[in-house]
Amino acid sequence: MLILASSSPRRRELLTQAGFDFTVEAADIDERIQSGESPAKYVQRLAVEKAQAVYDRFKDRDSSGDPLLVLGADTTVVSEGEVLGKPADPADARRMLQRLSGRTHQVLTGIAAVSASGVVSEVEITQVFFDLIHESELERYLSSGEPMDKAGAYGIQGYAARWIPRIEGCYFNVMGLPLARTIALIARAGEGHNEARPPV
Amino acid sequence: MLILASSSPRRRELLTQAGFDFTVEAADIDERIQSGESPAKYVQRLAVEKAQAVYDRFKDRDSSGDPLLVLGADTTVVSEGEVLGKPADPADARRMLQRLSGRTHQVLTGIAAVSASGVVSEVEITQVFFDLIHESELERYLSSGEPMDKAGAYGIQGYAARWIPRIEGCYFNVMGLPLARTIALIARAGEGHNEARPPV
Repeated sequence: MLILASSSPRRRELLTQAGFDFTVEAADIDERIQSGESPAKYVQRLAVEKAQAVYDRFKDRDSSGDPLLVLGADTTVVSEGEVLGKPADPADARRMLQRLSGRTHQVLTGIAAVSASGVVSEVEITQVFFDLIHESELERYLSSGEPMDKAGAYGIQGYAARWIPRIEGCYFNVMGLPLARTIALIARAGEGHNEARPPV
Repeated sequence: MLILASSSPRRRELLTQAGFDFTVEAADIDERIQSGESPAKYVQRLAVEKAQAVYDRFKDRDSSGDPLLVLGADTTVVSEGEVLGKPADPADARRMLQRLSGRTHQVLTGIAAVSASGVVSEVEITQVFFDLIHESELERYLSSGEPMDKAGAYGIQGYAARWIPRIEGCYFNVMGLPLARTIALIARAGEGHNEARPPV
């Protein structure tokens, strides 16, 4: 029994395309970054907290015949050291896109699998190269509303594709879920080669 | 007036997502590679031939108010020097996927824009890293029928995503159309900075 602890439609779509049967349960956790926390530690911690929260809610449904496994993920964009989460408003989205324009940034996704045998978690990093964004394109993109629910104010799979001539790393990570690595993580969790469950 | 000289649904989808208005006309050309032709020359030649064939068919609709521009593209997969086109049958698809398994290959797309002022064309190359493909996954993928209409017998955006932990270059090139470069090519063709039209 696989539960995806994320309300992201992109993650759901990717996991479906990869052939998984699962249900979706959103985790309600505090997503703020902690003082002094690195971006990699941050997304890994959030992935674990999301998966753990949903596991705790559904662990009574765990059975030896159909063991429960909860997958958590969290994605953020890092531009020259600054973490760019989801924009607060269109002005914030504009500021983020202007910051990404003509530069290379990193997309980090933390992934975590929680099961009866414990927690496994990893971080995937992809380099994303952006062309210069023309002002008319920026206006069009902002008015489409597409940037508003996405870390870094863009989704690679839509209109923003035109600005991205090159990536280095996992493409699906930029969409929100590094598929190959996630599948390997789920397999590892299923085999029970897990880290000890951290004390709650 | 933009015409896409390709019947690929992926190219149509990408160009639509990027915000272009266009129509689609398939070109009927001989797609065989010539003896001694390099993969890059091959896809560039086919892109030009596709765009030219459709331009010649519709050039009477060219007008100064709405100049005609025809975009052609051709994509192929190269694994250690061997060109992998679309598989002839499921056995051929199996052979191609076994060849890609656990190795890095190149995806090449030739793009060409033909207008009244001439022809511009380029080639984009992306490195694609494949994990080992398990036999059970190979069977499942072959029985889905998805490999049959695709160069190299896979589409990066579907089930095959699970085997691809990393790319270096343009993702959309692997889908069949390097968007950022295509948009720059269309802009260049529209400005008339073209190569001389080759003799017919």
